[in-house]
Amino acid sequence: MTEKLIEPRVLKGFRDYLPATMLVRERFMETARRVFRSYGFSPIDTPALEYAEILLGKGGEESDKQLFRFHDQGDRDVAMRFDLTVPLARFAAQHSHEVGLPFKRYHLGPVWRGENTQKGRYREFMQCDFDTIGTTSPAADLETLLVIHDLLVALGFERFTIRVNNRMVLNGLLQTLGLGDRTVGVLRALDKLAKIGPDKVAEELVERVGLDAAQAQRVLSIARPEATLDELDAAVADSELGREGASRLRTLFETASAAGLPAERLALDVSIARGLDYYTGTIYETFLSDLPGIGSICSGGRYDNLAGLFTKEKLPGVGASLGLDRLLAAMEELGMMSAAATPAEVLIAYFDAGRLADYHRLARELRWQGFGVEVYPEAVKLGKQLNYADRKGHRVALIAGSQEFAQGTWQVKDLRSGTATTVPATEVAHAIQSILAAGR
Amino acid sequence: MTEKLIEPRVLKGFRDYLPATMLVRERFMETARRVFRSYGFSPIDTPALEYAEILLGKGGEESDKQLFRFHDQGDRDVAMRFDLTVPLARFAAQHSHEVGLPFKRYHLGPVWRGENTQKGRYREFMQCDFDTIGTTSPAADLETLLVIHDLLVALGFERFTIRVNNRMVLNGLLQTLGLGDRTVGVLRALDKLAKIGPDKVAEELVERVGLDAAQAQRVLSIARPEATLDELDAAVADSELGREGASRLRTLFETASAAGLPAERLALDVSIARGLDYYTGTIYETFLSDLPGIGSICSGGRYDNLAGLFTKEKLPGVGASLGLDRLLAAMEELGMMSAAATPAEVLIAYFDAGRLADYHRLARELRWQGFGVEVYPEAVKLGKQLNYADRKGHRVALIAGSQEFAQGTWQVKDLRSGTATTVPATEVAHAIQSILAAGR
Repeated sequence: MTEKLIEPRVLKGFRDYLPATMLVRERFMETARRVFRSYGFSPIDTPALEYAEILLGKGGEESDKQLFRFHDQGDRDVAMRFDLTVPLARFAAQHSHEVGLPFKRYHLGPVWRGENTQKGRYREFMQCDFDTIGTTSPAADLETLLVIHDLLVALGFERFTIRVNNRMVLNGLLQTLGLGDRTVGVLRALDKLAKIGPDKVAEELVERVGLDAAQAQRVLSIARPEATLDELDAAVADSELGREGASRLRTLFETASAAGLPAERLALDVSIARGLDYYTGTIYETFLSDLPGIGSICSGGRYDNLAGLFTKEKLPGVGASLGLDRLLAAMEELGMMSAAATPAEVLIAYFDAGRLADYHRLARELRWQGFGVEVYPEAVKLGKQLNYADRKGHRVALIAGSQEFAQGTWQVKDLRSGTATTVPATEVAHAIQSILAAGR
Repeated sequence: MTEKLIEPRVLKGFRDYLPATMLVRERFMETARRVFRSYGFSPIDTPALEYAEILLGKGGEESDKQLFRFHDQGDRDVAMRFDLTVPLARFAAQHSHEVGLPFKRYHLGPVWRGENTQKGRYREFMQCDFDTIGTTSPAADLETLLVIHDLLVALGFERFTIRVNNRMVLNGLLQTLGLGDRTVGVLRALDKLAKIGPDKVAEELVERVGLDAAQAQRVLSIARPEATLDELDAAVADSELGREGASRLRTLFETASAAGLPAERLALDVSIARGLDYYTGTIYETFLSDLPGIGSICSGGRYDNLAGLFTKEKLPGVGASLGLDRLLAAMEELGMMSAAATPAEVLIAYFDAGRLADYHRLARELRWQGFGVEVYPEAVKLGKQLNYADRKGHRVALIAGSQEFAQGTWQVKDLRSGTATTVPATEVAHAIQSILAAGR
C-alpha cells in the first residue's frame, strides 16, 4: 500500500528564503542591529499574536480585512500583528515606567497582512523599525536622520537621498487658507503626486477634497520637490504652526550638516506627505538613486501621541522603518544578489576515508582564526566534492591524502582560477588569506 | 467625551522581551549564527503560516490540539508552525534539487504551540535548529557533535556535558529479545528514567509495555548512564543492528577526541531515548552542570527519512536544536542576566543647548572607532541625564560646556566609580577605552 504524498507548497503570498537570499537578508539585519545599537537604541520583541482589539484599535474596516484574525483554543479573539507600531504603542503603555523615558528601541520581526499580493509584495514580511519615544526634542529628529543615513551607508549604498518634510508646514498653510479640516483629504491627494502629476492632483483637490482652484494652486506651489526653505518661509508667514515647521526644518538641515551628514544625500521635499495622518512633524523618505522604482526604502516621521488608545500618558516620538524585504526583492529582480549559497569560504575535501578527524582538526584551527570552513561529509570522488564547492560558491578547497599527510602539506586550490599549490600545514591560513584577498 | 482606553496586555502564554533580556537573546542568536556559518551551514527561512495539512501530516490529534489553526480570508485551512522540522521537510521536498544535496541549513525563528503554559514555557518561543540532510555518513554525526560543543563554548558555557546514544543499540537489543514491535512503548518508559527512577520504569515496562521481568532488566542494564562501550558491545553481540550502533558510537567518540573535543564534555549515555520515534541513529542531549534542572538545552539526532510525507526521495539527515528561550528563562530566573538595558557604553550629555551638532559629530567619530554612543536627546539638567545613564547601564559619560569647548577638552566620567577627568578632544577615545578595560 502506498500512502498518498502531500504536495509540498507554500500559501499564496508567502515565500521560502533560500540560502543565497537569506545570507544577504541576515547580513542586512545584522548591519541594521549594529547601527541601531551604536546609537544606543535597545532591542525589544513582542508577540506575533495579540488580542484583536489591541491590533485593531480604531483602525476600522480597512485594517480589519488585512488581518489574519481568528479565535484561539481558549476562544479568544486574536490576530497576527500587521505592523510593529501598534505593538510598540501597547508595549510603551504597559512598560514605560519599567523601561523609563525617553525610550529608544529597535524591533526587527515579521508582520502579516492578508492583502492582495502584488509583485514584490508578500503577506509576510520583515519589518525593521526604530523609534525614540517620550520626547519632543528636535535632537531626536536629527538623530533619526543620522541613523537613516548611517544605516544606508552601512548596508553598502552610496547613492541615495533622504527627503525631509515637516507636516506642520502644510498644516499651517491649510489653517491660513481656512482648510484645517481638509488635511486628510489633501494629504491623500498629495500622496499621488509622483504617480499622477500636479495637474491631476489639482483636479482631485478641487473635485474630491473641495478646495477652490486658487487654494489648490497655493497648496501645490509649496508641495513641490523643488520648493526651497526661503519659499516655505514666505508661504507660511501668516501661520504660527507653519513658521514653527519651517523653522524646525531649517534647524534640522543646519545641525545635520554641522554633524557631518553629506549635503548631497539630504533634500527638502515638501511634496512628500505620507498619507498616514498620525504624523505631526518631521517626515522622512529615502530613495536609492539606482533603484528609484521601488519607492522609499526607509520612511518615518514624528508623531504627537503614540499610545492614546492604551494610556492617558501622552507619548510623543519619532522614528523610521527600513523596508528590508522590499529592498531584497528588488535586488533579486535586478540580479544584484551574490550567487554564493554558503557562508564558508573554505571547503576541506573528505579525501582519505580514514583521516576524518585530521580534516576536522584543521577545520577547527582555521575557524579559530576566523575562517568559515566546511568539511565535505562523505568520502566520495574528489570531482563530486569540487562540483559541490563550485555550486555553493566556496572560494578555496583544501585537499590532503596520504602523500600530503606524510609530508605535512596541504593542497590549496583557488576555486575561481583553478590553480592549486602545495604548502606546509603551517602556511595554509596564509595561503587562504592570499586567495581571498585577491578575489575581492 | 472621554474614550474608553483599551487595556494594554499580552495573551496568556505570550511575553514581551524587554531590552535587558533581548540584548542577551540577540547576542545568543548572533553567536549561534556565527558558529553555524563557520561550519558552512547556510540560513533559510520559511513562512510562519502553512497549510494545516502540511504541518499536521500524520501527527494526529495530539499535535492538532497544540496548533494555532484557522481558516484564512481565502477560506484556506492554515496553521502557525509548531516547530522548524516539518517546515524543513516540506522545504527539502520542494527545493532539494535547487539547493543540492548534501544540504546543510540552519534556521532561527519563532514557533507557536497552544499547549497549557507552565513555568518557563511559553506558547511562542524561538527555535534554533541546524541539520545536515542527504547523507548517512558518520562524518555528519561527528560534525553535529562538534557544532553543539563549539556553540555552547561560544555562548560562554564551560561546564557542560553532551550525552550521546545511538538508537540502533536499543533497537538491536529489542530485536534480540523478540520485542522489535515494542520500541515506542519502551522509549516512552525510558524517557522517564531521570524523573521516576529505574524501579518505576521497570514496573511500567512490565505492566504497560508488556515485557517480562527479565526482559525489563536486560533493557535497564543497558539503558544506564553508567554503561560503558564494552558493556554495550557485549549486550548487543547477537544483533547486527545493535553491533552497528555500538560501532558507530565507538567511532564517534574516537574521532571526536582526535578532532580535539575535550573528553570531559562528552559522555556515553544509553539511558537517553528522546521519545520521538523518528530518530534512528545517533542521539544527542546537552546538560549544563550549573543548571541541570532545566533539562537538555541542545538535543537532536539522526533520522532515516525526513520528508516521506512530501516526496518519494529518501532524505536521511542529522541535526540538533538549541533551546534558546528556555535557556534565557532559566538564566533570568537565576539572576544570571546582566542589568544593562543599553547596547551603548557611552552617553554624551546634551549639556549646552546650542551645541547639538558638536555632540553628534563626536558621537559619529567614536562610532567609527567601534564604540556604542548615545547622545541624550534633551538639554535638561545634567543630574537627570546621569540618572538616565545609571538606569540604562551606560559605563561612561562625556560632558562638555562652553568652558570645555573653549579649551578643546571633554570631561570623561566613569559612571561606575564616579570619577571624572578632563582630557583633550584627541584623547577621548583612549580615555573611554581605559575605563571599559578596567570595568570588565
